[in-house]
Amino acid sequence: MRKILVIGIGAGNPDHLTLQAVKALQTVDVFFVLDKGAVKQELVDLRQSILADHVTGPYRVLEGRDPDRDRTPDNYVQTIEAWRRDRADVCAGLLAELADDEVGAFLVWGDPSLYDSTLAILDDLLARGLEFEVEVIPGVTSVAALTAGHRVALNQVGKPVQITTGRRLAEGWPADVDDVAVMLDAKCSFEGVDQDTWIYWGAYLGMPDEILVSGRVGEVAAEIRALREEARARKGWIMDTYLLRRT
Amino acid sequence: MRKILVIGIGAGNPDHLTLQAVKALQTVDVFFVLDKGAVKQELVDLRQSILADHVTGPYRVLEGRDPDRDRTPDNYVQTIEAWRRDRADVCAGLLAELADDEVGAFLVWGDPSLYDSTLAILDDLLARGLEFEVEVIPGVTSVAALTAGHRVALNQVGKPVQITTGRRLAEGWPADVDDVAVMLDAKCSFEGVDQDTWIYWGAYLGMPDEILVSGRVGEVAAEIRALREEARARKGWIMDTYLLRRT
Ligand SMILES: C[S@@+](CC[C@H](N)C(=O)[O-])C[C@H]1O[C@@H](n2cnc3c(N)ncnc32)[C@H](O)[C@@H]1O
Ligand SMILES: C[S@@+](CC[C@H](N)C(=O)[O-])C[C@H]1O[C@@H](n2cnc3c(N)ncnc32)[C@H](O)[C@@H]1O
Repeated sequence: MRKILVIGIGAGNPDHLTLQAVKALQTVDVFFVLDKGAVKQELVDLRQSILADHVTGPYRVLEGRDPDRDRTPDNYVQTIEAWRRDRADVCAGLLAELADDEVGAFLVWGDPSLYDSTLAILDDLLARGLEFEVEVIPGVTSVAALTAGHRVALNQVGKPVQITTGRRLAEGWPADVDDVAVMLDAKCSFEGVDQDTWIYWGAYLGMPDEILVSGRVGEVAAEIRALREEARARKGWIMDTYLLRRT
Repeated sequence: MRKILVIGIGAGNPDHLTLQAVKALQTVDVFFVLDKGAVKQELVDLRQSILADHVTGPYRVLEGRDPDRDRTPDNYVQTIEAWRRDRADVCAGLLAELADDEVGAFLVWGDPSLYDSTLAILDDLLARGLEFEVEVIPGVTSVAALTAGHRVALNQVGKPVQITTGRRLAEGWPADVDDVAVMLDAKCSFEGVDQDTWIYWGAYLGMPDEILVSGRVGEVAAEIRALREEARARKGWIMDTYLLRRT
């Protein structure tokens, strides 16, 4: 049976790679890459350097064009789902190139379980009747990279923590939690929370350009917005995440 | 200045170790170990085998007795805090053995940010006026090991997820989330949720004894309880975690 590995590669530092991931990489015949165009070339380069550093055997790299996604859709869930179907079509094409006894792999940023669609795409392909085994290799998340950078815990003693998106946070502070980790925020939604909330913010975590800022929202929000815009303009892209803490 | 590394070693599989952790291990002069007695000898062994496999240079291992904790306290937060102070006393004693230019390290299960007190202990020691630098190396969490084992995402598309404790879940389903990852549950608190909720449960994740069960709570709760009790009796300890999903 064909086997597809979904390998978490960590959140930016090539040394976030686990030994399990390194061993798995060495068994791969075909690496599948969903190419998002030129914008995040730095991230494509990171993947290529991971292969160059850790894979000795012969392997093929198959690239598919990652379909574009409406970033400001009226219906978020529906739009994401249509986009996922398109991606699944592309991936079905890629998987067709994998022979019966071969191992294919997707390298996934951070951990494959967190705000990533690879597993959902593979589920869609299985539902279409394609046959393959799936194995997932866990990775270091950007949330862990964030808390490591700031040397803080994600949760307060015995208390819960929520991981959510910028879009959700913009709708209001979630109930029943004092600690909220926010990902996928293109709009500085932290500006809308209580000004006394503590924020631990990080961009390009684990990468040479890593930026860390922490403090009360009321005191650092403007600085973060400015840093964020400056870095984004300079590099052409940004990935940032943050932890909000009420004490 | 003395340096203390807080190194996430992953959640059970020795190959969860990251390349960053392996490199960091090799710089360490003194490993600090908080010994919890004989119960979880298997976990102590895992740490020792990590050192044996990855550290070549000479190093010292300093063990402290991890103070006992009341597992069913009247006041959870207060009890945890008193226990932490005791632990900080023990750790202050350990750190006293570290020379000025040396590097010490704590190996932390999973990722150091998640339901672990090492960072809080070090904060307490810094507050007491002890001087040292702290560096945190992120690791694979047991939550990532769980979702990898089940090959599922932690969150539904664009939706939030809460990470909480068994104690909190027992107080009721948290507001505003359909996906809840539960740790530190000694009491099968999943039995109290809506019977239609999907559960992805895992014990000894990443270890040779890994057990995975998934299904509707109403259909698998009894099986999980039985497996849990049998395994706990056989091995003398258990670590399990689960993801609850309402769809
Ligand atoms: C599509 S999600 C993927 C998350 C990934 N699977 C993980 O485990 O971290 C992308 C979001 O993750 C966060 N992120 C990922 N890598 C990051 C990094 N190196 N620095 C800061 N944020 C990062 C950002 O919030 C970004 O919008
Ligand atoms: C004190 S917390 C430490 C968590 C750790 N820092 C992490 O990142 O996973 C211990 C809890 O983590 C979960 N856990 C840790 N390792 C596990 C494993 N290998 N299998 C199942 N659950 C685990 C259990 O819920 C356990 O009660």
